[in-house]
Amino acid sequence: MHVSSFQPPPRTLMGPGPADVHPRVTAALARPTIGHLDPAFGAMMEELKGLLRYAFRTDNPLTMPVSAPGSAGMECCFVNLVEPGDKVIVCINGVFGSRMRENVLRAGGEAVVVEDDWGRAVDPQKLADALVAHPDAKLVACVHAETSTGACSDVKTLVELAHRHGCLAIVDAVTSLGGSPLEVDAWGIDAVYSGSQKCLSCTPGLAPVSFSERALTKITARSTPVQSWFLDLNLVLGYWQGASGSGKRAYHHTAPVNALYALHESLVMLAEEGIERAWARHRRNHLALRAGLTALGLELVVPEAERLPQLNAVAVPGGIDEAAVRARLLETYSLEIGAGLGALAGKVWRIGLMGWSSRAENILLCLGALGSVLADMGHAADTGAALHAAQAELGAGRGH
Amino acid sequence: MHVSSFQPPPRTLMGPGPADVHPRVTAALARPTIGHLDPAFGAMMEELKGLLRYAFRTDNPLTMPVSAPGSAGMECCFVNLVEPGDKVIVCINGVFGSRMRENVLRAGGEAVVVEDDWGRAVDPQKLADALVAHPDAKLVACVHAETSTGACSDVKTLVELAHRHGCLAIVDAVTSLGGSPLEVDAWGIDAVYSGSQKCLSCTPGLAPVSFSERALTKITARSTPVQSWFLDLNLVLGYWQGASGSGKRAYHHTAPVNALYALHESLVMLAEEGIERAWARHRRNHLALRAGLTALGLELVVPEAERLPQLNAVAVPGGIDEAAVRARLLETYSLEIGAGLGALAGKVWRIGLMGWSSRAENILLCLGALGSVLADMGHAADTGAALHAAQAELGAGRGH
Repeated sequence: MHVSSFQPPPRTLMGPGPADVHPRVTAALARPTIGHLDPAFGAMMEELKGLLRYAFRTDNPLTMPVSAPGSAGMECCFVNLVEPGDKVIVCINGVFGSRMRENVLRAGGEAVVVEDDWGRAVDPQKLADALVAHPDAKLVACVHAETSTGACSDVKTLVELAHRHGCLAIVDAVTSLGGSPLEVDAWGIDAVYSGSQKCLSCTPGLAPVSFSERALTKITARSTPVQSWFLDLNLVLGYWQGASGSGKRAYHHTAPVNALYALHESLVMLAEEGIERAWARHRRNHLALRAGLTALGLELVVPEAERLPQLNAVAVPGGIDEAAVRARLLETYSLEIGAGLGALAGKVWRIGLMGWSSRAENILLCLGALGSVLADMGHAADTGAALHAAQAELGAGRGH
Repeated sequence: MHVSSFQPPPRTLMGPGPADVHPRVTAALARPTIGHLDPAFGAMMEELKGLLRYAFRTDNPLTMPVSAPGSAGMECCFVNLVEPGDKVIVCINGVFGSRMRENVLRAGGEAVVVEDDWGRAVDPQKLADALVAHPDAKLVACVHAETSTGACSDVKTLVELAHRHGCLAIVDAVTSLGGSPLEVDAWGIDAVYSGSQKCLSCTPGLAPVSFSERALTKITARSTPVQSWFLDLNLVLGYWQGASGSGKRAYHHTAPVNALYALHESLVMLAEEGIERAWARHRRNHLALRAGLTALGLELVVPEAERLPQLNAVAVPGGIDEAAVRARLLETYSLEIGAGLGALAGKVWRIGLMGWSSRAENILLCLGALGSVLADMGHAADTGAALHAAQAELGAGRGH
């Protein structure tokens, strides 16, 4: 075997995640590995749980990162909360709602689907109707920030509806955590999962989760074992919380030590900025990007009231080969933007302004590069005007 | 929230894993994050698969890292290969065999247990008897290197027996990969999983796996869906191998980009050393540690012919508080050694010489520190003699 060390090309990451990772976070990642049962590591774990509670806006004791990517965080919620035969109403308005349905089925549950168009928020009325039609439903599942489309749903209202009908609510907050208002306690969310590589701007590979007391009660009252050993919260808790009363951590699996250093650092940075200020920054930068895109003659596919600031789905203009544009951006400017997924494949680009990617210089690079490439491909685009529009918006935002 | 950046205390890791991580690996970990669908990342993934084939000694096309710790690698093997009702013979001689049984049950299988004493290898005759008694068994599962005891089982013979009776063989190689001879193809292993943080000396969080053609045939012929969406190889393959024929990688989950850089680097280092030379180094250093432990009046619990070189279970001398010894080693010398697990809890220490931890200076530190602490606690230990014995063995090993 003759393989050399891998030297990744430095990129600017403005796709749907991973986002740019701050040097402080990669520096944390590279610190010396210590044992997963080391007392010093245990102290770090406690801080990490507190920082996650801060980010999720919750006091839930059961708040921690799952040692695997966001998709495993999703699976953790479903395999613990769904028992065979449980009826679950799943709101689908993009790829990740469909994935939730798949998780319900694989956990032995029955899925009732409430569908909305891709690029739109979930319609609360449809959920209300489904809850009336299915009084035996046990759970409602919905996606807060649909990463595949850039639509933001009114989770507060959806959770209220679920509770009114005696259901627990599972919420996908992969793309919302740290980027736009998410209030786990104030909204009464029972189970929520996220990912490290979106608005937390950490490296990919961890899935923060949080569970309410109600959710924990359902989990501990299960009559069947959780089908996944790795994701069984009854076992994971022994490590993250220690055996009840004893304060002693029980070995479950070997925690991804260095990845947890990185998540800790990214959350320290979030706390330093202040989460409301982080939300405001994502919003301000979104407005600047939008002003520039508009000046380029490009349109966002999600209606304004339902738009996420951190993920912007842009309609590909007619006659433009969307994949060729992305390839040019990557080759010429080392800039990554995302393709469409599922029903939006080939129709949109997804421009992420997540975490540390959400900053002024990235917006100008993206508009400048996209405008130039589109102009070169024959699309009438005034790149200078786009940059000025964005800059004006950034200046106005700073004034607040 | 006021939490500071976490600065882990530098440790010498001589427990059951994680092992010491080489600075080249942490440097790789901290390289810039790029997208999980970036062409440059795809090229790295191909190299990584090749490097894993080298380490596993296999040509299996289906060889890759699962994006989660070793326990998830175990679960990946079981949920893909076990269908509800399948009878699986599980050889148990420690913690990880028991965990395999748990995985069989949670996948809906029926587990037939073949038990051996903790600290001993699996007895092939017991497996042969079980295969005769259960002609309807579909799978045999066994642990190559029992991390909880330090015993090495004769996997070549166990797999031969399984095949003779028409069973596929699942092997746990978490602690053996890279540290002692493991021949996936020559031994005919059908499914094998490992961990990044043992003899590969990478950070924890990834689980290399490899599946034979026979295993893949069973997986693709399943009549029931794999219960885990995250670990369903039919889906994971679309990302790691590309949709059949198209060569295009399909999004499944966001790969843990930086962790994969680190695994790549640790495998590049293994290939540079040469795997046979790595095995020989683990063996040589084990003999040196053993010579020193003997001089300290300490005994290894596993019979010589069944001992792993990379994990040494040492009997705690009578009258010694084993936890106090470990605490002293950690506090005074920043040295981690492992406690016993399960049936061996309180009775042994587990001293790891895995990957980059398996080097001369670690052996001398461990013997010097352990000897001094034991002497201080009243155990008659001649630390100087132990160091000389180890050094003599290291010198003799170098002469070969």
